[in-house]
This record gives sequence, structure tokens and C-alpha cells, in this order.
Amino acid sequence: MAASTTPDRSRRSERSRVAILTATRDLIGEVGYAKLTIEAIAARAGVGKQTIYRWWPSKGAVVFDSLLALSERPDGGGIELPDTGDIDADLKAVLRATAAEFSDPGFEAPIRALNTEIINDPELAAVYREKMERPIREAKLRRLRGAREAGQLAADADLDLLADMLYAPLTQRWLLRSGPLDDDFADALVDAALRAFRP
Amino acid sequence: MAASTTPDRSRRSERSRVAILTATRDLIGEVGYAKLTIEAIAARAGVGKQTIYRWWPSKGAVVFDSLLALSERPDGGGIELPDTGDIDADLKAVLRATAAEFSDPGFEAPIRALNTEIINDPELAAVYREKMERPIREAKLRRLRGAREAGQLAADADLDLLADMLYAPLTQRWLLRSGPLDDDFADALVDAALRAFRP
Repeated sequence: MAASTTPDRSRRSERSRVAILTATRDLIGEVGYAKLTIEAIAARAGVGKQTIYRWWPSKGAVVFDSLLALSERPDGGGIELPDTGDIDADLKAVLRATAAEFSDPGFEAPIRALNTEIINDPELAAVYREKMERPIREAKLRRLRGAREAGQLAADADLDLLADMLYAPLTQRWLLRSGPLDDDFADALVDAALRAFRP
Repeated sequence: MAASTTPDRSRRSERSRVAILTATRDLIGEVGYAKLTIEAIAARAGVGKQTIYRWWPSKGAVVFDSLLALSERPDGGGIELPDTGDIDADLKAVLRATAAEFSDPGFEAPIRALNTEIINDPELAAVYREKMERPIREAKLRRLRGAREAGQLAADADLDLLADMLYAPLTQRWLLRSGPLDDDFADALVDAALRAFRP
């Protein structure tokens, strides 16, 4: 009966989807974005090319979803920054982890490729901001708002500006390879940004 | 006599060089980096393709020199930031001007194209840092050092970090088109960065 086959088909689809997104991320790390092809993704994922074209209109769209999948939590919940009650310690933990991720070629290569596309494509940039950047940004702002309410930041602190001052120097150093991305840099950045917005 | 023709030839060469670099910048603004060709540059500059290939090995190299030429001063002197003695006013003037430049499509398009190349090419990034970024960075650091000596910044202020916190949020907002680049943003950035490093 048709009804009994639906869960199986749905499980198979989900397996294929995960295999395609994983293959996409792996291949970007190995051959780079420019040399990535739908053929290679299909071969690595063990699916037909048509399966990929049925779900995604372009290479850029698969790459985008493969990166988006990285920030999906298995429990379906949203992104949250750590909250131990100590904003200084929490931000240092997050910025140290971000610096470490950006220093890992397997992790950073696909995001670097995506950033190159975004810089030259205002429409993709808007989708990126809405789907990937906004949930992360809102998580950062929630954590900073908590710190402001706890009196660890000035009552009139501009939290958008604070978020930019925390993350932009890290992102720039990563994209332009203009200096080391280490714990010392992460800590100095948090110390200086918090000094600018303390009560 | 050969000796008497040299100045003429040298003047002609310099005229061609300037025409090629100007044509390159103009065309990037009109058609974008991806669609720019050596043929089009030669036609616009009124020189033969071979003249360009004799002086530059690739399209990227011409584009790079065309942007480098923008920061060459006619008097051959170095780059200096304004110095009225008031670090707050001077930085606001510079960051407002930078924000305005980045909002001008004719000015920003070639630099955006160059940044895309740099992000994906560690060797070009190193040349860029040495030839274009370093002189500008040193000018910023000289101005900040003057302010520190004048007691307008803390004696132990990390001027490299301060320069990153001043410029990276502006650069990121420009590259990712993540918010308006206006006087208010420039001023808020200077106010916050100076608060972090005041005496």
C-alpha cells in the first residue's frame, strides 16, 4: 500500500540529502570551490546527477545549503552562545573557538569560497544575511542583551556596534590572512571591546 | 643621435602607462573585473595589446598596478593622515571619507574586485599587504602613536588592535553590504574605539 512506503522514501531522501551536503563540504575542502562540479558531488555522494538538479538549481545553491546545514542543531533548536553569567569569559570562549575554526583549512575553505561569492553577488549576500548571518547575529545580540541587563555593559551600549567590533577584526584577519588567529588575539579583542562598552 | 631620443621615448612610455592604468580602472567600474579583458584595456588606452603584455604578465597584475597608482602621490611623498592635534576629529574625518569612498560605485568596484582575488590567493594577498596595505597601515599607526605621545590614548594602548577595531567593521560592512556606510556609523566607531584605549 502506498501509505506504508512513504516513511521509507522519506528516510531515503533524507539520507541522500545528508550525503550530498557532506560530499559538497568535503570536496570544497579538497579541490576548492572553483573546481567543484555537480558530477563530482554526485559521484562522492553515491547519487545520480539528476537527484541533485531536482533539489538545487545550481552549484552555488548546494554549497550554500551544505554550509547552512552546519549551523542546524540536531534537536532543531536555535543557536545560542554560552551563558555562564560571565560575559567576559563567555565571549573569550566563543571568539577563541571561532579563531580556531578559521585556522582549520577543512572548516574554513568552504566558508571562504562562500564569502568570495557573497562579496560579488548582492542577491546571494541578502540570502546569506537572512538565512545564515541573522540567526547567529541574533544569538550574539541576545547574549549581549543579557549582559547589559545584568549590568555588565553600559545601559546605553550600542550592541550592534559592539558585535561588529568583536567579530569584524577576526573576520578580516581571517579573510585577508593579515595576522595570527590565536587565543591572545581573541582575548585582546574581547578585553578592548568590553572596555568600550562597560558601565 | 640615440641619446637625444631617450627623453621623448620615456615621456611616451609614461603617457602610455598612465593611459593603460586609467583605462583599467575605468573599465572595471563599467564592466566589472570578471568581464575585463586586455583587449578592451588596449583599445580604451589607445595602445597595442603587446605594449600591455610587455609590461604586465597578466590581467591581475595590471589591475593591481592600476589601484596601486591611486595611492601614489604626485610629489612622490608618503601617505599621511590629517593631524590637527585632535585625534577624535582627525579619525572621524578619515573614517567618514573612507565610508564615502566605499559608497561610490566607481571607486569601490575595482577595490572590491581586488579583495575577491586576494581572499583566494595567498601570494597576491602578501604582495597587496606589502605594497598597498603596509604604507597605509604605517600612516595610521604614526597618527595613533602621535596621539598616544600627546596623552590622548593610554600609554599601553595596543595601536595595532586599535587600528583593526577602527577599520575592520567599516571594511566588513562594505564588503558584505551588511549596513549603511554613513557619517553616523563612522563617528560611532571612532567614539567606541577611542573609549577602549583612552588614558
